Amino acid sequence: AVPTEVDSYHSLFPLEPLPPPNRIQKSSNFGYITSCYKAVNSKDDLPYCLRRIHALVFAYDFHAGGETVMSRHFNDPNADAYFTKRKWGQHDGPLPRQHAGLLPESLIWAYIVQLSSALRTIHTAGLACRVMDPTKILITGKTRLRVNCVGVFDVLTFDNSQNNNPLALMAQYQQADLISLGKVVLALACNSLAGIQRENLQKAMELVTINYSSDLKNLILYLLTDQNRMRSVNDIMPMIGARFYTQLDAAQMRNDVIEEDLAKEVQNGRLFRLLAKLGTINERPEFQKDPTWSETGDRYLLKLFRDHLFHQVTEAGAPWIDLSHIISCLNKLDAGVPEKISLISRDEKSVLVVTYSDLKRCFENTFQELMAAANKNERGSS
Amino acid sequence: AVPTEVDSYHSLFPLEPLPPPNRIQKSSNFGYITSCYKAVNSKDDLPYCLRRIHALVFAYDFHAGGETVMSRHFNDPNADAYFTKRKWGQHDGPLPRQHAGLLPESLIWAYIVQLSSALRTIHTAGLACRVMDPTKILITGKTRLRVNCVGVFDVLTFDNSQNNNPLALMAQYQQADLISLGKVVLALACNSLAGIQRENLQKAMELVTINYSSDLKNLILYLLTDQNRMRSVNDIMPMIGARFYTQLDAAQMRNDVIEEDLAKEVQNGRLFRLLAKLGTINERPEFQKDPTWSETGDRYLLKLFRDHLFHQVTEAGAPWIDLSHIISCLNKLDAGVPEKISLISRDEKSVLVVTYSDLKRCFENTFQELMAAANKNERGSS
Repeated sequence: AVPTEVDSYHSLFPLEPLPPPNRIQKSSNFGYITSCYKAVNSKDDLPYCLRRIHALVFAYDFHAGGETVMSRHFNDPNADAYFTKRKWGQHDGPLPRQHAGLLPESLIWAYIVQLSSALRTIHTAGLACRVMDPTKILITGKTRLRVNCVGVFDVLTFDNSQNNNPLALMAQYQQADLISLGKVVLALACNSLAGIQRENLQKAMELVTINYSSDLKNLILYLLTDQNRMRSVNDIMPMIGARFYTQLDAAQMRNDVIEEDLAKEVQNGRLFRLLAKLGTINERPEFQKDPTWSETGDRYLLKLFRDHLFHQVTEAGAPWIDLSHIISCLNKLDAGVPEKISLISRDEKSVLVVTYSDLKRCFENTFQELMAAANKNERGSS
Repeated sequence: AVPTEVDSYHSLFPLEPLPPPNRIQKSSNFGYITSCYKAVNSKDDLPYCLRRIHALVFAYDFHAGGETVMSRHFNDPNADAYFTKRKWGQHDGPLPRQHAGLLPESLIWAYIVQLSSALRTIHTAGLACRVMDPTKILITGKTRLRVNCVGVFDVLTFDNSQNNNPLALMAQYQQADLISLGKVVLALACNSLAGIQRENLQKAMELVTINYSSDLKNLILYLLTDQNRMRSVNDIMPMIGARFYTQLDAAQMRNDVIEEDLAKEVQNGRLFRLLAKLGTINERPEFQKDPTWSETGDRYLLKLFRDHLFHQVTEAGAPWIDLSHIISCLNKLDAGVPEKISLISRDEKSVLVVTYSDLKRCFENTFQELMAAANKNERGSS
């Protein structure tokens, strides 16, 4: 029962199973039944993530392939066993260990840096996040985090009647954000949401002490134990310490890699456009009342070049299919190099020797001719 | 007089003007005449940056489009005027100001974070950089830095005869690295190499005090004034402070942007390969002794699809050239959607209505047929 249209959004596609209205689902969704859709906005044709709360819909950027921290890290019921079994009087299992069940510390720090950065941005703006929760933190790619549903609580709990300044409670909400961050970090370190339940806290902190650095332990203690003064996201920075360098190096290294990939792929766009142009010229049925247009003059050379590109055969007459041959010839055409190329007529009776630079001139002139005719007609009809 | 080949490198291309042997050029190049080339390694076909020192050649990764900090920031002789004119008894000009001649502080911090990160990596490995100099720091893109010529001094000054441990002097070299970093930062803040000359230091520090944050000033003072204890790159971190977040956010934001670009461009690669495959099928002169192969059966549909892709005309018969039509049709072909498409024969006497899913099947079968013939021949001839 997905609506076909909501406001200016169409093509709705559910991103979560449609809500079975149970307590947990409700409690982790602002106390309301909510549902989440991918949808396309008819104004800009971009995909958005819609979150529906009763009659309200919030639109966020859509991140294809994103999943929540909840589904990535807290979906294994066995992972809770270390904490939950004790309740039934069973003997403690083997202590979970980093890399053997528990997450690597570097990953947890990568998350801490991003989540604290998000809180820092929000708090610096005088606002609070209020949704620092594994079900609302999205992971895209390997480790990139985004906080979803920001602003929902501000709308839902907005109370104009009291004539209260809605910003009055911000300081309190900001403190709550930092406690929530502490819970997320502790849950990640335990690889279990059970670890952050009050009765398991001591056992969870033992787990952290044994498996992780004192910086990580101190960060969690700072966030989760009572402080004499207000907590601030800036106090976390010394505990992150030199890990900032690690994060930054990793981000910049990743930049370098994808920039290199991009540089390679940009070539593909250029090559694709070349082939598309060549396609509009080759074998065009009739042009300017000349049915032989694509077979004569400059176009004849381009037809033979097309054969040279695509229809190579071995000496035995078998097809010789080699993408690198196609790419290399197109690149030479695009650059208009002075190198010579022998183009052989289909009846093999004549061989035309031209340079790529000649071919480029033919190619450009011919495409210009087509474009001029196309534009002329457009102007004529408008 | 560029050699055509050096060791396994060929296609040498000078990256710097060939050396006029003057004092400055020599002193900023390890005391030797050096020259720098782009060259291709015949073993891996990758481009490298070669630095030739007399008979020695060092090979580094080649970064296309890179320039040095020297050429980007210290190439304007007027920028030195504030410092150099005073020497001739002239009245001080107007004080240079940030953004009006001087570099923005955020850029300087972006450089500090990267250069200190490089030193941190090198020092943590128990080594020293020894070439922290504007002529050897490369900028690629807008602000990405790389330190060039690392290791040259270690090789040039290696002294085996004394039976000294070459690592004994590392602590001293590391201290020198940090002083060099201080000089680079001060020069950047003054936007002038004249600022780091001993007689201008006081004036340079005044300039920094007036234009930049106390963190930047303290960083320079820490690096350039005598310290009671050994300097360490880690001591810089508190002065960088929250700027780590800024840098990291910027790097991650940039990641997001180029990843999105990459996602778009990857589509081009896919589309290019589709067109290349279609090209190998359409108008193939003869295959399996059948001269009409490309005109009959499945291939006939693909020929009409090619016409549909490339040879659209308006009602008036003018060419209708629209890359988005080509892309959209190719995407539907690639996805094999059930949508129907009307393919019109060239004599306009028959219309074939097929789905893209049918076309995809034809396309894949036909290409498989070509590949099978190509592979069979390869096996036969080997």
